[in-house]
Amino acid sequence: MPALKKKRNIHEYISGYVDGEGCFSISFSKRDKFLVGWETKPSFSVSQNEDRAQILFLMQKVFKCGFIRRDYSDKTLKYEVRSLNDLIYKIIPHFEKFPLLSDKRNDFKNFKSVCLSMERNLHTEKNGLQKILNYAFKMNSSGKRKYTKAEMQKALR
Amino acid sequence: MPALKKKRNIHEYISGYVDGEGCFSISFSKRDKFLVGWETKPSFSVSQNEDRAQILFLMQKVFKCGFIRRDYSDKTLKYEVRSLNDLIYKIIPHFEKFPLLSDKRNDFKNFKSVCLSMERNLHTEKNGLQKILNYAFKMNSSGKRKYTKAEMQKALR
Repeated sequence: MPALKKKRNIHEYISGYVDGEGCFSISFSKRDKFLVGWETKPSFSVSQNEDRAQILFLMQKVFKCGFIRRDYSDKTLKYEVRSLNDLIYKIIPHFEKFPLLSDKRNDFKNFKSVCLSMERNLHTEKNGLQKILNYAFKMNSSGKRKYTKAEMQKALR
Repeated sequence: MPALKKKRNIHEYISGYVDGEGCFSISFSKRDKFLVGWETKPSFSVSQNEDRAQILFLMQKVFKCGFIRRDYSDKTLKYEVRSLNDLIYKIIPHFEKFPLLSDKRNDFKNFKSVCLSMERNLHTEKNGLQKILNYAFKMNSSGKRKYTKAEMQKALR
């Protein structure tokens, strides 16, 4: 990668890149050990073909968090941040300062609401998780989910 | 789309977006009417799902050129610039000023070389087209082409 010229605004560049390639998602797993029965897992990720994945490493350096892993199924690399602390104190503030300009910003808003709810531990009790479901099921409407909202609501104990 | 705040650097944002989603390509068509037998067609394009295609309209507005069309096969919209004049005087200068940071910049460099060669009409004579083939076949190595370089070189008359 060429040395960044001082005049470059890499933060705007990253927001533009993420507008196209990034994904804010909330997934849920059944966890019998958890009192509420479900684990809530927020993730910010960006995938790219390996031969032009330089921006993923740049993001890891700029955000000072997250991991890069190989996806053997489709020859891509994925940059991912799962730590709630990193999401709240590093990723979310970036997109507050350099907001997405497409409707993907709606995903970001719901993602932020879930992360802030989790910081208050709302995901560990029934009423709080109900609210989180409302945010999460508005996101990535084109993506597939293992459980429907109705199934999860029914299973909430 | 929200009003752009003055402090936003939309040019960096666009370069970041294009680094992920954009495509610089040179395609060739057989044209018996052309003395050299081939038409050289440069294209800069960006595709996006229709429900978050706002950036395509923003690019059209910022670059003051290009067209947006619907791709019925996969529910996307595509922003595309094919005019050599627009490519040379509007698109290429943008990416000179706000360069791509991934290896996609190599595609851009070859694309630029082809466009500048075309401005000198090199694509209309055999030796010039040979040079253009060298640039074009270094690009988008993962993409499919109708004709191989060898086929085209053989057919050059």
